[in-house]
Amino acid sequence: MALKTLKDLFLDELRDLLSAEKQLVKALPKMAAAAANPVLQSGFEKHLRETENQVERLKQVFEVIGETARAKTCVAMEGLIEEGGEIIEEDAEPAVKDAALIAAAQKVEHYEIAAYGTLVTWAGMLGHKKAVTLLSQTLKEEKATDDKLTQLAETSVNPAAARK
Amino acid sequence: MALKTLKDLFLDELRDLLSAEKQLVKALPKMAAAAANPVLQSGFEKHLRETENQVERLKQVFEVIGETARAKTCVAMEGLIEEGGEIIEEDAEPAVKDAALIAAAQKVEHYEIAAYGTLVTWAGMLGHKKAVTLLSQTLKEEKATDDKLTQLAETSVNPAAARK
Repeated sequence: MALKTLKDLFLDELRDLLSAEKQLVKALPKMAAAAANPVLQSGFEKHLRETENQVERLKQVFEVIGETARAKTCVAMEGLIEEGGEIIEEDAEPAVKDAALIAAAQKVEHYEIAAYGTLVTWAGMLGHKKAVTLLSQTLKEEKATDDKLTQLAETSVNPAAARK
Repeated sequence: MALKTLKDLFLDELRDLLSAEKQLVKALPKMAAAAANPVLQSGFEKHLRETENQVERLKQVFEVIGETARAKTCVAMEGLIEEGGEIIEEDAEPAVKDAALIAAAQKVEHYEIAAYGTLVTWAGMLGHKKAVTLLSQTLKEEKATDDKLTQLAETSVNPAAARK
């Protein structure tokens, strides 16, 4: 049986998320290159460095629970990134494309907020205090990124798109 | 040019979400059938009826903005549902599978929270007041579903999974 205990499930979800974060590390430079708004572009670049750090943090979680850091293809993130790729390829007004890129990025952030939220809860139930600390740190970062994207959309990107 | 204005983008996102909700209508009965916990099972069934209603509400949004209700395949939701399908097929302890089903469902809810949040903002900027009301109503429901899933996980499903 593949998922016999909550520990098995926790590990399975960690592997899914490691794949998700690694996929994002490859996708974010393309999102940055496609952005016209300089604040959005540097935001994606900053989030790339943060995501690289989150990959390392996930590897630490594997370490503290005594498991090998191995990724398991996250098909949901594949879909989310494919959706982002469609926007990148789209023939669009730059300001409108920026608004679409933010929408796609916020869907990615929400995927991660749900995933890390679940992992923090499970880590707590399994008594992995160090893992709770590490995962909570990333959860906080993902929420902050989502908030920053909302702010950028509302103050600058959406109004520019609405003028088109 | 496919996305020349914010109106084009709003319409594109509406079509994506119509596809996403329709996919969910097909997936939820399978999630309900795979759930062992009776509260979770009836929760999925209740959310199915709510989702059917959300499809109708989306069609009303198309109507109030004077556009034809047409879906455009949402690849992100395809990925999310495929992930849910993997869990359904998984050989797992029933209580552990329930915890996994909740995690998958919360990722779906978060996708929708991000999507409806964006749509409410764009509808407001475009001056579609009736659309704002309709979309906000669904956004509220999605958040409530996410909260209910968290509560069920914490009070009953996770503790049962942790005993495995």
